[in-house]
Amino acid sequence: MGGIEEQVAGVNKCTPKENGTMTSLSSDAVINLDIGDPTLFQSYWSKIGDKCTIAFSGCQSLSYFANTKNLCWFLEPELEEQIKRIHSVVGNAAVEDHHIVVGTGSTHLIHAALFALCPPDCPEPTSVVCAAPYYSCYPEATDFLRSGLYKWAGDAQTFDKDGPYLEIVTSPNNPDGSIREAIVKGIQGKLIHDLAYYWPQYTPITCCAHYDVMLFTASKCTGHAGSRIGWALVKDKDVARKMTKFIEVTTIGVSKEAQLRTAKILGVISDSCLHPGSNNFFEYGRRLMAGRWEKLREVMGRGELFSLPEYPQEYCLFTGEYSESQPGFAWMKCDENIEDFEKFLRGHKILARNGSRFGSDPKHVRASMLCTEEEFELFIERLLTIRGTSNGNHYF
Amino acid sequence: MGGIEEQVAGVNKCTPKENGTMTSLSSDAVINLDIGDPTLFQSYWSKIGDKCTIAFSGCQSLSYFANTKNLCWFLEPELEEQIKRIHSVVGNAAVEDHHIVVGTGSTHLIHAALFALCPPDCPEPTSVVCAAPYYSCYPEATDFLRSGLYKWAGDAQTFDKDGPYLEIVTSPNNPDGSIREAIVKGIQGKLIHDLAYYWPQYTPITCCAHYDVMLFTASKCTGHAGSRIGWALVKDKDVARKMTKFIEVTTIGVSKEAQLRTAKILGVISDSCLHPGSNNFFEYGRRLMAGRWEKLREVMGRGELFSLPEYPQEYCLFTGEYSESQPGFAWMKCDENIEDFEKFLRGHKILARNGSRFGSDPKHVRASMLCTEEEFELFIERLLTIRGTSNGNHYF
Repeated sequence: MGGIEEQVAGVNKCTPKENGTMTSLSSDAVINLDIGDPTLFQSYWSKIGDKCTIAFSGCQSLSYFANTKNLCWFLEPELEEQIKRIHSVVGNAAVEDHHIVVGTGSTHLIHAALFALCPPDCPEPTSVVCAAPYYSCYPEATDFLRSGLYKWAGDAQTFDKDGPYLEIVTSPNNPDGSIREAIVKGIQGKLIHDLAYYWPQYTPITCCAHYDVMLFTASKCTGHAGSRIGWALVKDKDVARKMTKFIEVTTIGVSKEAQLRTAKILGVISDSCLHPGSNNFFEYGRRLMAGRWEKLREVMGRGELFSLPEYPQEYCLFTGEYSESQPGFAWMKCDENIEDFEKFLRGHKILARNGSRFGSDPKHVRASMLCTEEEFELFIERLLTIRGTSNGNHYF
Repeated sequence: MGGIEEQVAGVNKCTPKENGTMTSLSSDAVINLDIGDPTLFQSYWSKIGDKCTIAFSGCQSLSYFANTKNLCWFLEPELEEQIKRIHSVVGNAAVEDHHIVVGTGSTHLIHAALFALCPPDCPEPTSVVCAAPYYSCYPEATDFLRSGLYKWAGDAQTFDKDGPYLEIVTSPNNPDGSIREAIVKGIQGKLIHDLAYYWPQYTPITCCAHYDVMLFTASKCTGHAGSRIGWALVKDKDVARKMTKFIEVTTIGVSKEAQLRTAKILGVISDSCLHPGSNNFFEYGRRLMAGRWEKLREVMGRGELFSLPEYPQEYCLFTGEYSESQPGFAWMKCDENIEDFEKFLRGHKILARNGSRFGSDPKHVRASMLCTEEEFELFIERLLTIRGTSNGNHYF
């Protein structure tokens, strides 16, 4: 009930109720690294305190509309402004000649892009492809409604059909962190660039991306997955209009509260990059991810029992330094003595996602590097135990 | 960027920026009653002040998860509690033996229900029907992805196909406010009850609804369309699970900010009903709607130029009084001298939705009764002008 004072008094305590990730784990707890729940930046946001706090009164955001003058009529002007600002501060994507379409997470916008980009009057569904290993959600997202407009056609590397197609280019790639370009070179192809992880905490910013359709999400940029805010940068006006129409028909817009809070958070991050002395969010994120990757590579050893991808040193335009990628997921491969790596890790109370889900094989798993500090420490401990008990490769 | 004080200082001023509906209208402005933007309760929420204010800190709602123990794992426990509470306070729907699934507005949940209820392995798409006049968005929502699972089959009153089908029962009905029951009596039919307007401000609560799938939305209950929060009450566990799966595949959950704010607002409304002396939200809403309907019936006259549906007096279990329905939309019919009522009203700077969009005819329009006070007054003024200039039925 109470007034705003009560709200404020409670607001800066992140209890488990407010944040599902803060419950303390017992030493024999199963740790879930199957999903990429981005809770790793929690301590940063706890330290930020009220600088990021936003309040809503009962009389705000009653209308469906946010800006009737905008093509994307439900996009809050503050969010549009802060999206443009953070991209120009980071330099990872061109915004000036692009329209912004907001969605309930970038997943919503993948669906919107498929709808907007497939030819409207094709006799048969347009093929949707992505190079393996591809994000495990793409096939189901494409096929679950058995749409007559598009259908999943699998690995872009083996796709050789003539006619129109849609290729999803995920860069850095989920699950393996590789930097990617389009593979199919058909003349009737259209591209969707999923750039969810193209931020300095995960990879060097090597260029200002300038593709036709680019997808981003607050979940992986700021770590606020609970807000469900994603945005698309779209060059072509009609494509942006069709994506906006998709969001209208499926959900009649996107939560104003989530949009305004995301605008606030993006603003705080941009400020943190621009004002010397303030705690640069991306520097914090880079240090955190670098520390985790260092620990992981150390415990796994370079190719002894399991192997990890190697990433080249690249010059980052944002930091002005050479560095390696430190992806949000570890794409781990086991050696010949293990058939099913996911099953093996489950035996050690580590849940990771089976490589076969990504169009790869069961000798691979994807393990989230975006978990809480506590989960990550348990993950490292258990990998150490596995190594300790694995002399002579007797795994079972 | 300031701290919480700045937030609070600003939070209770509803500027046009914060609420698209507060810009002042010029006397010759076109008034848009085509969409049902529920901005009519604005003065109630402005008067509520800080009682409804909710604040979010930077470290809240990072995770995708809200309650891992719940079938609907992204549903905030507070929202679940307040949804159950308001239904038991109002007595309009049974909650105890139903699962709650939250969506980004009830539109999202219509899609989820179609997906969850159609037989999974049918050779051809399941027919989706609704009695005309039906909500104009149903046909497009059903067909826009050309799903192989379901397809729009039009007016339930003329539907005579054998085999499985889905019937949407909207009660009170959008556009005409009538109270409805299922019409098709096939043995393989499944029902979706869209009860968005089954609240005391719109219609007498004549029974506690106890259907298999019941859809509600904050937009029409509290007037907060900008939050995009809808909920489904679902009896069957597998159907609730499939609807939850749909929300997962399309948007990976629903904004936590919007859920927590809606929980707060629903709580304030329930309190307003339970504590004598406090400003009962539904009483306020009933007075407001009754006043608008009285003015509208007065200016239109009973059947002179245009006609409106008549509604029976019913006993309302919530108020303990007999009253008529006072729907969120006016379903207006013109007399024989007008061919296209929408076009006619547009000539008088009133935008309403053409009856043909609802499976009816151009002699009908749907005009929103949920607009701001200012818009409603202009609407009434212009209807008066039309009557004034219509002696001898010279309309043009």
